[in-house]
Amino acid sequence: MEKLTIIKVGGKIVEEAATLHSLLHDFAAIKGNKLLVHGGGRSATRLAEQLGIPVRMVEGRRITDADMLRVVTMVYGGLVNKNIVAGLQALGIDALGMTGADMDILRSAKRPAGAVDYGFVGDVKAARGEILARLIHDGSVPVLAPLTHDGSGQLLNTNADTIAGETAKALAPFFDVTLIYCFEKKGVLRDENDDDSVIPQIDKAVFSRLKADGTVQGGMIPKLENAFHAIDAGVKEVIITRADALASDNGTRIVG
Amino acid sequence: MEKLTIIKVGGKIVEEAATLHSLLHDFAAIKGNKLLVHGGGRSATRLAEQLGIPVRMVEGRRITDADMLRVVTMVYGGLVNKNIVAGLQALGIDALGMTGADMDILRSAKRPAGAVDYGFVGDVKAARGEILARLIHDGSVPVLAPLTHDGSGQLLNTNADTIAGETAKALAPFFDVTLIYCFEKKGVLRDENDDDSVIPQIDKAVFSRLKADGTVQGGMIPKLENAFHAIDAGVKEVIITRADALASDNGTRIVG
Repeated sequence: MEKLTIIKVGGKIVEEAATLHSLLHDFAAIKGNKLLVHGGGRSATRLAEQLGIPVRMVEGRRITDADMLRVVTMVYGGLVNKNIVAGLQALGIDALGMTGADMDILRSAKRPAGAVDYGFVGDVKAARGEILARLIHDGSVPVLAPLTHDGSGQLLNTNADTIAGETAKALAPFFDVTLIYCFEKKGVLRDENDDDSVIPQIDKAVFSRLKADGTVQGGMIPKLENAFHAIDAGVKEVIITRADALASDNGTRIVG
Repeated sequence: MEKLTIIKVGGKIVEEAATLHSLLHDFAAIKGNKLLVHGGGRSATRLAEQLGIPVRMVEGRRITDADMLRVVTMVYGGLVNKNIVAGLQALGIDALGMTGADMDILRSAKRPAGAVDYGFVGDVKAARGEILARLIHDGSVPVLAPLTHDGSGQLLNTNADTIAGETAKALAPFFDVTLIYCFEKKGVLRDENDDDSVIPQIDKAVFSRLKADGTVQGGMIPKLENAFHAIDAGVKEVIITRADALASDNGTRIVG
């Protein structure tokens, strides 16, 4: 099978001109089939503040009421997505910006209100891997914004890590998929104060030990759990690294 | 050749829930291949005002400085486009929202500053009809926002009527194209105070007479000139009508 590289980058990277510029060059340099998933939370927060819309977060997750949904639709689906697409086109990459609603590629269900009512937030229920595979085989490079839809006309805000993971799983039958999560460190660190203490490889047994001894904690736990879910669903490898290390071979490799 | 219907609707129709709902149903009911081009100017103006960004228009055309470009990118490419896409998906239409930057379908050049500096406004220079034709043949329904790019990473604001006309011309080699411009009247009127005085058909000779005697004036002149350019470039027919008359067979038919 042909290879496919899926890169997920957070908002910080794509929202500043200098880091976006580097990212687009590094992404363009990746050989073969590829797909980009981006965030945009900081710009959404800034626009909401300018519009006097309250920004409410619970455990790092955004509460998305109707006004905030309009904001993230504008920022993720419009501002961030289309600037990335235009930037990649300038580098000769045939980018196609999409949300989950476009060609129905990612359909979700509104998360039921539990202890927290997250509002218009969607959990992915179905992904049309065959559609994305056809676009990629035809030479396009999909650029996915973290928005989905429920199939009944409602757009929903969906975590970009989840979009990347679900897309990787849906494309696993069509490609040998490498899924790369970019975050602010070079990889999973043995010592959080030493940026060079990257753990090169983590399997499930190592993950259990790292959780037990507290090396891995907080937001890194769901990130690694997502990675293992992707591996279990047929994704060939998951790499956690920093965006500026994309061109190198560093980072932490998650294996089954 | 297969038929293709291209509909252009202005901002007013797509920005109000009730008229958008009707439009999407009428559009979904059109048989065969189709493509939608939309505006969004009123929402852009409203957002700009909320953000304290000055709105400047010259002869109905928007001056697009860097701040205003961000606004139209958010509103046209994000808010309006993605809500239409989600609404069409709910009606079983496999909509794909695009700007000119996506798959490089519409490349433009920034309009040189003359008597008026329109800022980040693009005049279309190239359209990839073969790419749109492939998407349509594969079952997609492109939904185009009035944004283009210059191929060097710059997004540009482009008039939606122009987008519709250029897209129709680019698709004329692949389909028998009917281009329908929706505006606020049922068609070109013989008497502007009588909504039922629709002129059923206009050819170039009739157009000259209607201009000479003042029946056709103002913004209708460039609209009709665009229509004749499209006909000359191979578009089969151009119809000018009102959005709520899409399902009927009314309107003014422009013929070569």
